[in-house]
Amino acid sequence: MSDHKAVVLLSGGLDSTTTLAIAQAHGYSSYALSFRYGQRHIVELRAAEQVAQTMQVAEHLVADINLRLFGGSALTDNISVPRDREETTMESEIPVTYVPARNTIFLSFALAWAEVLQASDIFIGVNALDYSGYPDCRPEYITAYENMANLATKAAVEGQQKIRIHTPLIEMSKAQIIQRGIELGVDYAQTSSCYDPDEQGRPCGHCDSCLLRARGFAEAGVADPLLETSAT
Amino acid sequence: MSDHKAVVLLSGGLDSTTTLAIAQAHGYSSYALSFRYGQRHIVELRAAEQVAQTMQVAEHLVADINLRLFGGSALTDNISVPRDREETTMESEIPVTYVPARNTIFLSFALAWAEVLQASDIFIGVNALDYSGYPDCRPEYITAYENMANLATKAAVEGQQKIRIHTPLIEMSKAQIIQRGIELGVDYAQTSSCYDPDEQGRPCGHCDSCLLRARGFAEAGVADPLLETSAT
Repeated sequence: MSDHKAVVLLSGGLDSTTTLAIAQAHGYSSYALSFRYGQRHIVELRAAEQVAQTMQVAEHLVADINLRLFGGSALTDNISVPRDREETTMESEIPVTYVPARNTIFLSFALAWAEVLQASDIFIGVNALDYSGYPDCRPEYITAYENMANLATKAAVEGQQKIRIHTPLIEMSKAQIIQRGIELGVDYAQTSSCYDPDEQGRPCGHCDSCLLRARGFAEAGVADPLLETSAT
Repeated sequence: MSDHKAVVLLSGGLDSTTTLAIAQAHGYSSYALSFRYGQRHIVELRAAEQVAQTMQVAEHLVADINLRLFGGSALTDNISVPRDREETTMESEIPVTYVPARNTIFLSFALAWAEVLQASDIFIGVNALDYSGYPDCRPEYITAYENMANLATKAAVEGQQKIRIHTPLIEMSKAQIIQRGIELGVDYAQTSSCYDPDEQGRPCGHCDSCLLRARGFAEAGVADPLLETSAT
């Protein structure tokens, strides 16, 4: 196993799974971190567990944090997830599926684990092009987070390590992400993207995330193996 | 009640309680946020609840986050809390009571709640002079956090509000903090500072936090009402 450890935020979705594959392709020994944050469905956590196992991460932790405590999002509250939104609307408006400060909280837990592991690398699968208007997916946000992180930790103060937040997908289209993942052998049948799956975990096909995923596979010119699995 | 809402991080200790009093003196309607983070004792949480009630905060939330998941601190693990350290050692070394990325995580939850409340003000009782070597108590860290926060939220992106992280104690000595608190009517008998209290919640008198508190009261020229309570 590599001496270079990286903490990889793993939701079990298409983007974070591809990010994990990229971290591993760069030779990092990967420590996958997922969250039980009060999301309305746990399909994505099951996906994260399956992905972590298949991709043989060094360790997989699931942190319990109840973001439902504060409310304010369709992903944690009883607010309807929007269906069949136009692409132009997705690009210009922050959706109700936005969870306040979610990436800031997720990165903060990753930073804590990195500090304990004495790792200096954190991977997050944010994407600026398909970001659906989430403020905490933009490059300027990530740079500011990295600056803060380098003043926050014991190792940074003692000059031992510089924290790097890796965002390998940030400038990629969904189609490019899928193509890169396929090159790296990612099994997208194991990933879950839907904001509003049914009780069997099947994607709704109408939320922003399903629409972006479908467009990505179409543009990449490949079939989504998840839909093939669901269909059988 | 004031229209100006502020989220105040409240541990139940001397510093955060004084910070709450200062926020209220500035006219903010205060939303106190505490954490059950896997600390070895819950005395400080009971103190936070009592303080929040006495000081009539608008709302008090306790977020459950298990920082024990990652380990790495005497406050969450079975590592002995150091006793009777010299002042020079306290000032020069990061102690084992440091919890990795704790303030980064605490501020991230405060940011999430502020966003939901549409509040732009967050108060945290960090202190750079008596900071016992914690990296995430320094002014440059707080400034970097604020910069990041202003790129992280929906309101910031939409230009509605600028997040301010208030650190009213940052340049104060422990004696000055106590004097200010007494002016504002803080009842320090309700606060808990000790890293290693006994089962009845009485302070050990030997950890860094007890020593700093004792020195502060001595320099302020007043008796610590908590010790008077414990003695009776």
